[in-house]
This record gives sequence, structure tokens and C-alpha cells, in this order.
Amino acid sequence: MKKFINQIDDLLVESLSGFAAAHHDLISLHLDPNYLTRAQKPRNKVALISGGGSGHEPLHTGFIGYGMLDAACPGHVFTSPTPDQMMAAAEAVENGKGVLFIVKNYAGDVMNFEMAAEMLPFENATVITSDDVAVENSTYTTGRRGVAGTVIVEKCVGSLAETGADLAACKTLGDKVNRRTASMGVALTSCIVPAAGRPTFEIEKHELEMGVGIHGEPGRRRETMRSADEIVADLMHAILEDLKPASGSEALLMVNGFTGTPLMELYVLYHSAAKLLERHGMKVSRSLVGDYTTSLEMAGASITVCLLDDEIRQHWDSPVQTAALRWGR
Amino acid sequence: MKKFINQIDDLLVESLSGFAAAHHDLISLHLDPNYLTRAQKPRNKVALISGGGSGHEPLHTGFIGYGMLDAACPGHVFTSPTPDQMMAAAEAVENGKGVLFIVKNYAGDVMNFEMAAEMLPFENATVITSDDVAVENSTYTTGRRGVAGTVIVEKCVGSLAETGADLAACKTLGDKVNRRTASMGVALTSCIVPAAGRPTFEIEKHELEMGVGIHGEPGRRRETMRSADEIVADLMHAILEDLKPASGSEALLMVNGFTGTPLMELYVLYHSAAKLLERHGMKVSRSLVGDYTTSLEMAGASITVCLLDDEIRQHWDSPVQTAALRWGR
Repeated sequence: MKKFINQIDDLLVESLSGFAAAHHDLISLHLDPNYLTRAQKPRNKVALISGGGSGHEPLHTGFIGYGMLDAACPGHVFTSPTPDQMMAAAEAVENGKGVLFIVKNYAGDVMNFEMAAEMLPFENATVITSDDVAVENSTYTTGRRGVAGTVIVEKCVGSLAETGADLAACKTLGDKVNRRTASMGVALTSCIVPAAGRPTFEIEKHELEMGVGIHGEPGRRRETMRSADEIVADLMHAILEDLKPASGSEALLMVNGFTGTPLMELYVLYHSAAKLLERHGMKVSRSLVGDYTTSLEMAGASITVCLLDDEIRQHWDSPVQTAALRWGR
Repeated sequence: MKKFINQIDDLLVESLSGFAAAHHDLISLHLDPNYLTRAQKPRNKVALISGGGSGHEPLHTGFIGYGMLDAACPGHVFTSPTPDQMMAAAEAVENGKGVLFIVKNYAGDVMNFEMAAEMLPFENATVITSDDVAVENSTYTTGRRGVAGTVIVEKCVGSLAETGADLAACKTLGDKVNRRTASMGVALTSCIVPAAGRPTFEIEKHELEMGVGIHGEPGRRRETMRSADEIVADLMHAILEDLKPASGSEALLMVNGFTGTPLMELYVLYHSAAKLLERHGMKVSRSLVGDYTTSLEMAGASITVCLLDDEIRQHWDSPVQTAALRWGR
């Protein structure tokens, strides 16, 4: 295992400290329990809090800031954060309109956010993301996994919350975006959890894992490596079978790298996927290409399609100021 | 070799086409000869053009847009673009104030941009970046290599050019930023050039290449893997020996991933490097952390320090609207 770390036990806090220092204009870091908030506490808005195991950066810390999250609770690598983190984060950012948790559907995360929700002295609700169409149940999940589509949920609900919308409206939009979003990924190499020190799974030089999860969980099947167009066709088949878009539908197309895949190749996947959507009579009007929901050093990528409507498009387009997503008025 | 490609011969055009489609609001793609420009041609500004071999994305295509480049000329992977590309790009974007080429110091790039410069019917100048302090001469270079510091040069000169500054002023600022910028990198794995199909260099499981170039060129020495703090100390020693900053100097600290290193680890490097600069009495006031000058799928990273002054800081902070760097007014 070759990684840029000092002591494994210090990895998370050193990384969070570096993140907070690099983005001190945007971020405040609180340790023990660990959570991060915006540098300036906003007023008169629903407080949006997400979190999950580390190792998926920039998810979620990179999405704290104007137009997205108010706080994030990072667990250890691929390990759920604990309820005390969520409670402390909620205490820090709640400002009179309640708390919305945005949680990827993994058993540990869901359980711990539920425990926090029950103990919270504030009005609260939870949006559970479950965009991964690869498998119905998985190593760490009952039901579908939440993966890169979570970024789209956080962006859109974050935009709505800035308008002063109430908790119920934020929850409704989050659930709607999740319902209209589908993802599937493919791995070419494994990730290596630092504390384990060895690859999470073995994969041969000519193989890919179709439908892989973002912790290296098994997907649909192990396959022989094929062309980009063939891989994209299989991913998109599963995605479109789930979304069943009407012809003429408008889509946001996201190609998300897991880390180890060059940006040049992510754009090859985008090219292939966009052409396929157009052949299905769809209009690709928005895009996101890059590493947004990663799996440590894994080589591979996922494709996400979100079916836009006027409301979702407007919230996607609205200004955002975070470390990882930033665009202006 | 496992990559998301179709035919190797189609990789570059498919990737560029995906890039241009994903960023159609920002980018126009021209093929044969290959170059990319802003979607809207600006007026009354020096036209800034960069380019070089592909495989370093988002460099340079991801930096086309308001506040940075007017055009970029991508060569094949790790191969210089040709003078006809630069000539065509210059014809497309020149708007009466001349052309400034920004060129990383590699023999092929310098030669081809020089040939284009000689043939150009426009007033023109060239800034050659040479921020890599690892080695004086290298596989593809006489003199120092141009690496991730090129992003800072492109950002600052791009900002100045938007103000209507003349060619001489843009050239002067570019040379100044380059002089005040130093970088050095370290590789943990090799890249794989698609047309070669095998790793550019062999590296053992316990080794790192200190001072590696962005094409996998040899650096200073092969070493045994060490802690992040020890690696950063060596990189920073070389950088600070070159820059010789006065105590109290203000710095932009950039930690650049080559692709295969998790963002979590890049922030560990940032944490370590920022602390080291502070111990040297320096003030780290600006940061950039992420994959900005990559080397295909290589795992590893480089550190860049740019010594700020009021002029450079102002141009770094100014608005930019590109695919890879984007911040607002």
C-alpha cells in the first residue's frame, strides 16, 4: 500500500485539517466530534446536513457552502459517522427552520442518522438517496445504494433551502430529485482501505466489475474488458430501464470518476453516453464531468442521468459556492 | 491496459468532442487541425493560446474561458501539437491586440510554437513556463520543465489580458509569475500511454520516484516509500531553495494530483506543506488543491508555491469562468 499518509490513525483529522485550511474562507472545522460547517452561519433557512464514510471526497465536505450544505459529518474511511456528530452539527447550524438530513442509503448511515433524528430537539426530516440501479440489495445496504446522484440532490435541495423554503418543501424536492435520478458504475481496479492495507477485491488485468459500489462492493457481474461504447451501452441500458424517460425528455448527464481514471477517459464516456441519450430522443442540456463521488484510488466511473424539469433545472443552475462545485450568479 | 476507450486512434477526438459537448456554453471545438476556443470570441484583448500534449487534462482545454485562455491546441497523448494547429487557433481568436503563447518548456512544444510564431501574421510573444525545480535538463527538455505552475501563469495572465492590457504587459506578467513559482512532484505509480499499452516506467510496491515529470520522466532519485510529512519536507526543501522567500512572504500553495491519488491524500499533503511554510515564517493566503495538471492515471502529486505580491494576488482572485476553474465576481 502506497499512500500519502503519516499515521493511519491521523489520516482523517490531517486531511480534514488540510481541507479546512485550504478553504478557510468557506469552511469551519470542529473536531471531537468531527463535523464541518460553513464559515458563516446563515439565517432563515432549513439547515442541510449530510455525511457518511470518508474516502468519497469531495462528497460531502466539498459541497458545504452557499447553495448546498450547511454541514457535513465525515466518518472514518468507509465507516458511518456517529449520532453525536450529527447532533453537534445540527446544534451548530440549525437556525429556526429545522434540519434536513441527506443520507446515502447504507444501513449504518441510515441507522445513525435515524438515531440522531430521534434525539434532535429540532424539527427534522431525512432524504435518503438511492440512485444506484445496479443491485437491489448489497453488502452494506437494504434496497438500492446512494451514490453520485446524491450530489444532484444536495445541489437542488441546497438551492431551494436558500430561498427560505420550509422543511417539507425541501424534503419533497429531495425525494423528487432522487426519484428522477439513476446511476450505475464500473470498476477497473479496486480501492485500498488504509486500515486494511490491501485491495478490497481482486480483479484481473482483463476484467471489469459492472455495477460496482463506491466501497468496492460487488456489482452485477464480473466481465471481460470491452470498449467504452459497449460499457456505456450496458450502463445506460440499466439506467434508462429504471427511469423510463419519455422521448423528448431533458437530462442532466453526469460522468463521475472514482479517482484513478484520467479525465480524458471520462470525457470519452460522456461523449458515448450523450450520443446514446440523443439517439433515444432525449435532450442533454446540463452536464457534470469529473471526480465528485470517489472510492479512494479506484479506477472506474459511474454514469448518472437526472431527468430535468423546470424546477430541477432552475435549482441546478442557481449559484453555488463550495470547494468542489462553484458557479456564479 | 484497461482504459475507457474505443479505438486508440479515436481517443483524442472522442475525448475532445465529449469535452466540447459537456461545456458547449463555454467551448467551440475545431477539428483538423484540432484546436478549441471560447464559444464567444472576445474583443479588444490579447489572445492567449496554450497547448501541448494531451494526457494532462484539465490542462489546457479546461482553462479556456473568461479570465484565462482564448484557445488551446491539444496534441496527441504526450506529443506536441503542430504549428498548423497554433496558426489556425491564432487566426480564430486574434482580435487586434496580438497573440501570446503560453508554452510549457518541452523541446517539441517550444520548437513547434516557435515555428508558428515565426509564421504568424500577428504581433506575438511567448511565455515559456519552467517551474519544475526537480531537474535542470530532462528526457524531453533542455532547462527546467514546465508543470503545474503553468495553471497559475495562465490564470494571472488571463486576468490581466481581460483588462485590455497590451502584449508586452501580458508577457511581462507571465514571465514574472513563472519566476516566482516553483514546483516538484513525486510518483507512486506509472502512467500508461495508450498507444504504448504498458507502463512508462517500472516502480516497485515500496518505491516512489522523487521529482518525477508529468510524462513519467525520471526525477531526482528512486526512493523507498516514506511518510507524507517526510515526502513533503523533501519537495518543499527543493522548492524553497529555489524561491528563497523572505520571511513574511505571502504564498499561493497548490497541491496538484496526477490522477490516481485520492483527494483525501492531497489534503494531507496540503496540511503538511502549509504547516511547513508557516514554520518558515510564510503566510499561505491562497490555495488550489485537486487534479489540474495530470499525467494520465499516474498516482502521485506535485506541490507548487507561488510567491504572491499585490499584482499577482489580484489577478489570481479575479473572476474566471472555465470548465476546470470557476469563481465569481
